[in-house]
Amino acid sequence: MSGFDQRPIGVFDSGVGGLTVLKALMEALPHERMVYLGDTARVPYGTKSGEVVTRYSQKNAEFLLARQIKLLVVACNTASAVALPHLMATLPVPVVGVIEPGARAAVAATRSGRVGVIGTPGTIKSGAYQKALLARRNDLTVHSLACPLFVPLAEEGWTHGEVPRLVARAYLGSLQDARIDTLVLGCTHYPLLREAIAEVLGPSVTLVDSAEATAKVVAERLAAEGLLAQRGDPAEHDYFVTDVPDHFHEVSARFLGQKVTRAEQVDLPFGDPPAR
Amino acid sequence: MSGFDQRPIGVFDSGVGGLTVLKALMEALPHERMVYLGDTARVPYGTKSGEVVTRYSQKNAEFLLARQIKLLVVACNTASAVALPHLMATLPVPVVGVIEPGARAAVAATRSGRVGVIGTPGTIKSGAYQKALLARRNDLTVHSLACPLFVPLAEEGWTHGEVPRLVARAYLGSLQDARIDTLVLGCTHYPLLREAIAEVLGPSVTLVDSAEATAKVVAERLAAEGLLAQRGDPAEHDYFVTDVPDHFHEVSARFLGQKVTRAEQVDLPFGDPPAR
Repeated sequence: MSGFDQRPIGVFDSGVGGLTVLKALMEALPHERMVYLGDTARVPYGTKSGEVVTRYSQKNAEFLLARQIKLLVVACNTASAVALPHLMATLPVPVVGVIEPGARAAVAATRSGRVGVIGTPGTIKSGAYQKALLARRNDLTVHSLACPLFVPLAEEGWTHGEVPRLVARAYLGSLQDARIDTLVLGCTHYPLLREAIAEVLGPSVTLVDSAEATAKVVAERLAAEGLLAQRGDPAEHDYFVTDVPDHFHEVSARFLGQKVTRAEQVDLPFGDPPAR
Repeated sequence: MSGFDQRPIGVFDSGVGGLTVLKALMEALPHERMVYLGDTARVPYGTKSGEVVTRYSQKNAEFLLARQIKLLVVACNTASAVALPHLMATLPVPVVGVIEPGARAAVAATRSGRVGVIGTPGTIKSGAYQKALLARRNDLTVHSLACPLFVPLAEEGWTHGEVPRLVARAYLGSLQDARIDTLVLGCTHYPLLREAIAEVLGPSVTLVDSAEATAKVVAERLAAEGLLAQRGDPAEHDYFVTDVPDHFHEVSARFLGQKVTRAEQVDLPFGDPPAR
């Protein structure tokens, strides 16, 4: 007979975008306590190198481990794309990223086998989605595309109207030409631009958001390893950020669906470069 | 009889934007050697808190001091706006920011006394331009406005066409209503969007770019303190960045007018918070 594990789940992101993943986790696992860390002092990760993102990810993970987490969710697509192997090899708890679950959902959704992936320059450059998709089904045609302006648009709340529509049209033209039937929104900010993206690509393209798929994988993993918490009242969560929390408080409602009012600022050292 | 000082001028910025200031310095002071540091691992500063920006600025200054600079130019508007008093109070060399020179140029340009300032959220929130402008002429009406999307637009090269024009129109409407005759481009990235900004505001508004004004102040300061270098061949410059230099190499031409091909990556510790 397996027992219960009341330790929290750790979730980190480069900033506020990972709250879309946290939201899906809270819905799928209402009895699990979460500790969320947003590295707002060094956001964004998507335009930075793999080396630097790996170093930041390591420091984020160490902070969460010190808070006794039982499992780590890397909610940031860029960090999942470039730092996951390093984190899985070095951390003493299970680590779940958002790439594998997103790829799994995309493979389930596509009929034509023509799949698009959009993400930050860091995510796209890594080829992580391409690799994960082809590992599951090697006859897919994968079209990858970096859309760097989508993150600031979502952060600044320019999610509706003419500007995001124009930017989406400029970015996504090549995916229309490629006649994809499924598009992975490979960045936690992109679901906020879903309307503009859908309007450009039309109803024949299924948009895949990794958040729900990731929550499902986390639930399976906890169950498989006997790490689920006991059912009880809905759990309380802790929020930490590396810059002052004002902006995080302000925009949290847009990403989480509810406003965070009690994020705490913490100081993370820059850290040594990871061994190569 | 005063001698010459062959030590370099140190210039730091949050990333690549400060190259517009470096360009003006190179034109005004062709015999001066410069050491440029772009903190590309932690860019952008404009959406981060004053506390965090001050901490990063301190570390940047320490790196340049270790390279025996004779004067420090803070090329980043956000860092100038929030960290200059701290740097001036603690560094053993003269420190020149971009706010005071920009304010001086704007006061010289305005006829109506209605001046606009656009910048990052950090710069605008600090009120530094407003303060510098009113200190020079207290009957000015100053209209300040944060335009956070301009930085990613410039970084990504979306500087011409419909998207920057639409974004400029959305941001600058209130400045049109205020009938300003002078606008300070209070961020080193904004000169790249000059065309879109000018198109929205029309020819009656003078656009003030701090870069040239700053170079002039630096030249005056070097002369006044007997720190000018001896005239000779055009000087060579050194470039350092905190992330891998690929992106810096790529976009340098857009900001500097010539491509940097030899930026060196350096590691800066995150550092302790400055004393409050």
